[in-house]
Amino acid sequence: MAKRKSKRISSKTAAKKPAKKALPKSPSSRGAKWVYAFGGGKAEGKASMRNLLGGKGAGLAEMASLGLPVPPGFTITTDVCTYYYEHNKTYPKELKAQVEKALANVGRITGKTFGDKSNPLLVSVRSGARASMPGMMDTVLNLGLNDETVEALAKKSGDRRFAYDSYRRFITMYSDVVLGIEHHRFEELLDRHKEQEGYTLDTELNADDWETLIEQYKKRVQEERGEPFPQDPHAQLWGAIGAVFGSWMNQRAITYRKLHNIPESWGTAVNVQAMVFGNMGETSATGVAFTRNPSTGEKKLYGEFLVNAQGEDVVAGIRTPQEISEAAREEAGSNKPSMEKLLPKAYAELKRIYNTLERHYRDMQDLEFTVEQGKLWMLQTRSGKRTAKAALRIAVELANEKLISKEEAVLRVDPLALDQLLHPTIDPKAHRRVIATGLPASPGAATGAIVFSSDDAAQLKADGHKVILVRVETSPEDIHGMHAAEGILTTRGGMTSHAAVVARGMGKPCVSGAGSLRVDYANRTMTAGGHTLKQGDFITVDGSTGQVLAGKVDMIQPQLSGDFATLIAWADKARKLGIRANADTPNDARAAVRFGAEGIGLCRTEHMFFDEGRIQAVREMILADDEKSRRAAIAKLLPMQRDDFVELFEIMRGKPVTIRLLDPPLHEFLPHGDEEIAEVAEAMGTEPRRLAERAKELAEFNPMLGFRGCRIAIAYPEIAEMQARAIFEAAVEAAKRTGESVVPEVMVPLIASKAEFDLVKAHIDAMAEAVEKEKGAKLNYQVGTMIELPRAALLAGEIAETAEFFSFGTNDLTQTTYGISRDDAASFLGIYTARGILPADPFVSIDQHGVGELVKIGVERGRKTRSKLKVGICGEHGGDPASVAFCHQVKLDYVSCSPFRVPIARLAAAQAALGKETTSQA
Amino acid sequence: MAKRKSKRISSKTAAKKPAKKALPKSPSSRGAKWVYAFGGGKAEGKASMRNLLGGKGAGLAEMASLGLPVPPGFTITTDVCTYYYEHNKTYPKELKAQVEKALANVGRITGKTFGDKSNPLLVSVRSGARASMPGMMDTVLNLGLNDETVEALAKKSGDRRFAYDSYRRFITMYSDVVLGIEHHRFEELLDRHKEQEGYTLDTELNADDWETLIEQYKKRVQEERGEPFPQDPHAQLWGAIGAVFGSWMNQRAITYRKLHNIPESWGTAVNVQAMVFGNMGETSATGVAFTRNPSTGEKKLYGEFLVNAQGEDVVAGIRTPQEISEAAREEAGSNKPSMEKLLPKAYAELKRIYNTLERHYRDMQDLEFTVEQGKLWMLQTRSGKRTAKAALRIAVELANEKLISKEEAVLRVDPLALDQLLHPTIDPKAHRRVIATGLPASPGAATGAIVFSSDDAAQLKADGHKVILVRVETSPEDIHGMHAAEGILTTRGGMTSHAAVVARGMGKPCVSGAGSLRVDYANRTMTAGGHTLKQGDFITVDGSTGQVLAGKVDMIQPQLSGDFATLIAWADKARKLGIRANADTPNDARAAVRFGAEGIGLCRTEHMFFDEGRIQAVREMILADDEKSRRAAIAKLLPMQRDDFVELFEIMRGKPVTIRLLDPPLHEFLPHGDEEIAEVAEAMGTEPRRLAERAKELAEFNPMLGFRGCRIAIAYPEIAEMQARAIFEAAVEAAKRTGESVVPEVMVPLIASKAEFDLVKAHIDAMAEAVEKEKGAKLNYQVGTMIELPRAALLAGEIAETAEFFSFGTNDLTQTTYGISRDDAASFLGIYTARGILPADPFVSIDQHGVGELVKIGVERGRKTRSKLKVGICGEHGGDPASVAFCHQVKLDYVSCSPFRVPIARLAAAQAALGKETTSQA
Repeated sequence: MAKRKSKRISSKTAAKKPAKKALPKSPSSRGAKWVYAFGGGKAEGKASMRNLLGGKGAGLAEMASLGLPVPPGFTITTDVCTYYYEHNKTYPKELKAQVEKALANVGRITGKTFGDKSNPLLVSVRSGARASMPGMMDTVLNLGLNDETVEALAKKSGDRRFAYDSYRRFITMYSDVVLGIEHHRFEELLDRHKEQEGYTLDTELNADDWETLIEQYKKRVQEERGEPFPQDPHAQLWGAIGAVFGSWMNQRAITYRKLHNIPESWGTAVNVQAMVFGNMGETSATGVAFTRNPSTGEKKLYGEFLVNAQGEDVVAGIRTPQEISEAAREEAGSNKPSMEKLLPKAYAELKRIYNTLERHYRDMQDLEFTVEQGKLWMLQTRSGKRTAKAALRIAVELANEKLISKEEAVLRVDPLALDQLLHPTIDPKAHRRVIATGLPASPGAATGAIVFSSDDAAQLKADGHKVILVRVETSPEDIHGMHAAEGILTTRGGMTSHAAVVARGMGKPCVSGAGSLRVDYANRTMTAGGHTLKQGDFITVDGSTGQVLAGKVDMIQPQLSGDFATLIAWADKARKLGIRANADTPNDARAAVRFGAEGIGLCRTEHMFFDEGRIQAVREMILADDEKSRRAAIAKLLPMQRDDFVELFEIMRGKPVTIRLLDPPLHEFLPHGDEEIAEVAEAMGTEPRRLAERAKELAEFNPMLGFRGCRIAIAYPEIAEMQARAIFEAAVEAAKRTGESVVPEVMVPLIASKAEFDLVKAHIDAMAEAVEKEKGAKLNYQVGTMIELPRAALLAGEIAETAEFFSFGTNDLTQTTYGISRDDAASFLGIYTARGILPADPFVSIDQHGVGELVKIGVERGRKTRSKLKVGICGEHGGDPASVAFCHQVKLDYVSCSPFRVPIARLAAAQAALGKETTSQA
Repeated sequence: MAKRKSKRISSKTAAKKPAKKALPKSPSSRGAKWVYAFGGGKAEGKASMRNLLGGKGAGLAEMASLGLPVPPGFTITTDVCTYYYEHNKTYPKELKAQVEKALANVGRITGKTFGDKSNPLLVSVRSGARASMPGMMDTVLNLGLNDETVEALAKKSGDRRFAYDSYRRFITMYSDVVLGIEHHRFEELLDRHKEQEGYTLDTELNADDWETLIEQYKKRVQEERGEPFPQDPHAQLWGAIGAVFGSWMNQRAITYRKLHNIPESWGTAVNVQAMVFGNMGETSATGVAFTRNPSTGEKKLYGEFLVNAQGEDVVAGIRTPQEISEAAREEAGSNKPSMEKLLPKAYAELKRIYNTLERHYRDMQDLEFTVEQGKLWMLQTRSGKRTAKAALRIAVELANEKLISKEEAVLRVDPLALDQLLHPTIDPKAHRRVIATGLPASPGAATGAIVFSSDDAAQLKADGHKVILVRVETSPEDIHGMHAAEGILTTRGGMTSHAAVVARGMGKPCVSGAGSLRVDYANRTMTAGGHTLKQGDFITVDGSTGQVLAGKVDMIQPQLSGDFATLIAWADKARKLGIRANADTPNDARAAVRFGAEGIGLCRTEHMFFDEGRIQAVREMILADDEKSRRAAIAKLLPMQRDDFVELFEIMRGKPVTIRLLDPPLHEFLPHGDEEIAEVAEAMGTEPRRLAERAKELAEFNPMLGFRGCRIAIAYPEIAEMQARAIFEAAVEAAKRTGESVVPEVMVPLIASKAEFDLVKAHIDAMAEAVEKEKGAKLNYQVGTMIELPRAALLAGEIAETAEFFSFGTNDLTQTTYGISRDDAASFLGIYTARGILPADPFVSIDQHGVGELVKIGVERGRKTRSKLKVGICGEHGGDPASVAFCHQVKLDYVSCSPFRVPIARLAAAQAALGKETTSQA
């Protein structure tokens, strides 16, 4: 209660208690301009003042300046919002006078007076942040109406029903967004009234009905709030302004900002604008339009409108809107008349304006308009949201139309949006046996065996299977399972459920909230329409449609031609960074080439060890009691490893391939749990006890910081030797087969000192020499290292004396710099991002201040020693646009990311080279 | 074989194959001086040329210059050794000529000629590195003897037996150290001969016996080596020189250097010196002396000698040496005449020389001498090794005698040596029920319950018990158990066994190799002389005597008065660094005060939580389903925590106390294993399943990088609030009781960003405000943070905006900077130090290049923001002298270490302030 009250008295408080000292962030109160007027063919603001006026305010000012028909109004700046929160929710003392003055100006232009009982000015109040923010208060229409002015409106409009309808709408909206009384509390009354009177539709209610209802509405407000609905238009206005500013810090807005990396410091503006009415009869209307098709990008006026309606009716979706153009109506097969037909004058005007605005803004615009008794009024223009496909087409076509340059076109497309276009989709010709439908939570399609727990997912993935993780819902504890799965399916949760959000982040297909499925964890089954599927059965999820299909289904690979190819080609011309892919398998490598990777930046060899035919030899190697038997086990792996590399080199045809020596701790290759140990022991012909003991021996408290990386190569050099030999023999073989010379880059992981690197490098060089001798071939290769420990970054100058390239392993570097285990972070990272302690998940977007400084230090010191040192990054950050921009800034030679992220990285690298500003990390 | 040969031909190789390019490290070959002569009252070298001439060579040169009777000789410099290893084991080409010249000079002074058949010069060849190195070849005496010169020696000395005895000694020694034929291969022959002839003692053998044996010896050499014993004195000489240089890189020497941080680059010198004979009858003798007692430090000539013997006889310990002075003889109750009595002239000369040398070197000297037919010859002088007790007394007395300044006295004592004096010892009045005796492997005594595994040790320690870890032998896997134990007892292994070395490093009492004990791991018992002790029974180990005692025994605390107090007082005047102690309990705090700590730099509150009476409330807190029940559990802990702090503050009486908020992951407080879980669940009145589930929920892959430190305070602020409240209430209470104002320093662990710190600080400040209000008292306190993550060091500038002090947690900072888990490092750190990859264990001595740079960055950036920022260190490095020196260099305000290390830190800090050079970390 107290909180709600404070909203309404805050303006008075502001007037009484002038701020004694202005904090540096908000402009000095004295003499500041807090309000910008527009209307009557001119405006104090303009499009470039978006930060101060918000998107909507800047658009209105710009349109007014362009001479477009904009209802006059004014914008209270975002600085007021900042001031408001820095001064204990009070306003600058000049604000009141500036608002009064601006209001009078609107009156002058419209010939009406705010609060006047015979010719009242009515206004809309809308929030308007720098970026569109659905989490905030949106709009209050018809503000200024009260028991007296409603009568004046009735008289002036000659339409009593219209006036009272407007008033009840105002009460409902204002009560909802300002007074906190939910919609349905009024709808109850409306429904009861309709029932009593035997009405079905709202349109059946006449003026008297509304008048009766308005009395009931006001009573309800009195009941709910303990005080009457405000009759004073000024009190209404300040109440609405306070509600806009208050909504900046409501939970939804905070969450939205968090999700979209919008700084809290931006604040919102408030737009107050003279009302125009789309609900003044059959020659009035309200609508939205896009200057091009936001789904396909096609150049065609696209939109919909409603006759005799206010904006909220379009949003509410109760009535079906009509098409704007005749052509669209025909195409849609609608029998409702188009605006072109129904309101030809307004339509012509809209067409003229859309051309003006698109040429003026040089981008596809999203327009809101109202037709009041035949006259068109523009209420908003902004860059229209669009699908990735449309974004591509629009950018390419605008450039082809010479409205923008090719560089601008490159800058126009959000790299992350490309993700939608880069995933496999189900072959349209394939037979779809749909067993359930949920929400299309993350695009792309995937096939795999059902698993019901994340541990199973991780285990099966480790064993080389492709799985779909099926859960009632996911939680942060499922991250490893989601990582392991090809796709995710949940039976509960919406588009912003944990599963949906995380899957999108990972670029994995996800269907969420498939409520018709019943999951039985205990029996590891799932029931869909009478059919029962068990763990291991194959399903396919289509994250673009929300469908769940039985069995394996044919996929088609994403189309990378047309606009996509055009734009990416322009991007490639602009970028400085090389783009490689992380690829462990021939499939990965082929995808990498398809997506335009210029090489492989990281080939993790451990994945090759998990193969059915190999894991036994790997385990023999681990169980070996001495070097001799270890070498015997390793010898079995050599031909397989060599074949792996031959295939990779063949696919990459001379492009650089960076191969990392075995990295994970050896216990990862051993079975866990008595049952599995017994099984494996039998298969190996060894004692389960011996296996269990070795597993226990190798178990670690902190495997992340344990016996792994180069530490394995140093303890068991024969493993590194085998791998080096396999690489070099494969290089010789692949060169023979393809005719392209192969320059393998052998990468030593987890280096902390030059001494470690030198020791391992000596083994690698020795193998190269041996292979050269045996094959009579000259090898061209490099030995370099991961920089993934803070110490390696600090000692980079020394390490570069012998290391021929660096690749920043920013995953591990983030773990060690932050002291956060990625596997365990779920228990607190959620709290951290929720409380704003972390601006973003540092495993998704590189922490430029901490981890980034180490990267910078590593690059500088490394290059100081070896000026031509090749430096790249191969953590998962390589596919994150903000991180790519950072890599460009610190002058890396390349980034390496998952194959599907390669086009994203190419575009992001181009944008960085073209000087695109990236969102700062607080 | 090939290797052995190379030793002997290396000089030839050197002559044939001049080094074409000298590497920068060794001086240019051309015109370099490689040999320094001494003797005849003058010398080319001097004491200050120790690096070039080695300790022995420098001492000989200095004594010669002082006019003392030194057999003439020359020193081949350490540069030759460096050259030798940098040039593929060849010598500089000038060396041969310089050696010949020096040899001729010795001949001139002695009137003898090397290799001459009538008047042969015989020499000794000794190694002599910069620091004494027992791992290397020591000495070859009588070199120059062969089948011909031995006859000349017989003739000249008039003692045929002496001559042939000398020859057989030479063959044995030379064969051993140069040719690699072990001693016992000759002793076999000697024993057989003695048996045949019916002799018992060597003295019974006459000249002919030796002559016969020499033939057998030479035959044996021929058999073993496939070539005859070298007869050419020059070949003998170069063989011995090569053996000295070769021994620099033998395994023992490498290991010794590793253990003592001696750089490989130092190299060794070779000393060649004219022989004098202590075995030329009853007026000849050989002996060693110390100018002061090396055990007690008492100012008294101290030493022993053997009549008619060569140096090796003293070392061999076959004959019991005699006392030097009459007084000492009387004191020892010996009936063998003293040197003072037996060789009065030589004794008087020795007394004169000892005074000269002590005044000259201004330190206690360790002398080697030989008396040849009544004439005293000095063979060595060097600073004498001494016990810690003696070191203290000598330093203090030398200063009091004005031979050195107080500052020099402070620099004279090795801080680490103090460790011996700082541990509790068994009360001499206590009854000792000795059940076994082993080796006194690490000083001090300790009582505790027997445990037979390191896991048990860690667990019981965590539960608040004091334990003695009993193992057959320990391995690196036992580190955590050794850390947890009060003392260590092994039944196998010597003074350099793993247990002994590690225990000394940890400063824990250890008895090793108590072979009469039988350990039965399976039944968890140990048998000693018929008595069986089981796990949990109390024993006491006395690491200073090697005794194992049954039951608990009274201890006396170390004496910190007398010389100790004097020297430490001088040190305190010199040092700049503050010294605090890490203390978690009142006992720790009392020890800290006793050892002179100026405050508590780290009080870990988690230890308080393990207390029997508390762990239940802690577990309730962890199991709580909501904040309310969590708060209820926490409320039970408040009064106990407050009492903890009141007691600490009382003991510290106004000295600063830094209290760290709860740091470890919560799962550490939960039971592990089904059995224990069942037990605890019953005690708590909860379901074992619930407990098991929560334990599983909290389990982590990498707890070190997990949900701990400030992350707990952020997720469950009520825990931090309780702790802050307890601290502040205790501060008020303790101030009331003691009359001293208490300024608690509240420390937030594991900070990675300012945002985290601010959030936790806000809770702490709120508690301070609340307590101030409730108690009507004004609190004076600081809130600061651990800097223990690389990111915190990098972001120190920001963090210092609100943090009022920093304490570098170098344990965790080392773990994260290196990416090494201390708990798991055993599996590879051994390999690392063995292969020289790590110059030292970075958890013992701070890694100045990596971790150290982060500390520097943290200090600089922190102080740039807040110039008066108080900065300390509280990792275990705080008690390591090299690390203390580093902390002094980077201008920390204080170091904090375990109470027993406080005096070590005080002395090390003083030495750092006095500019003592510390061993560089390679």
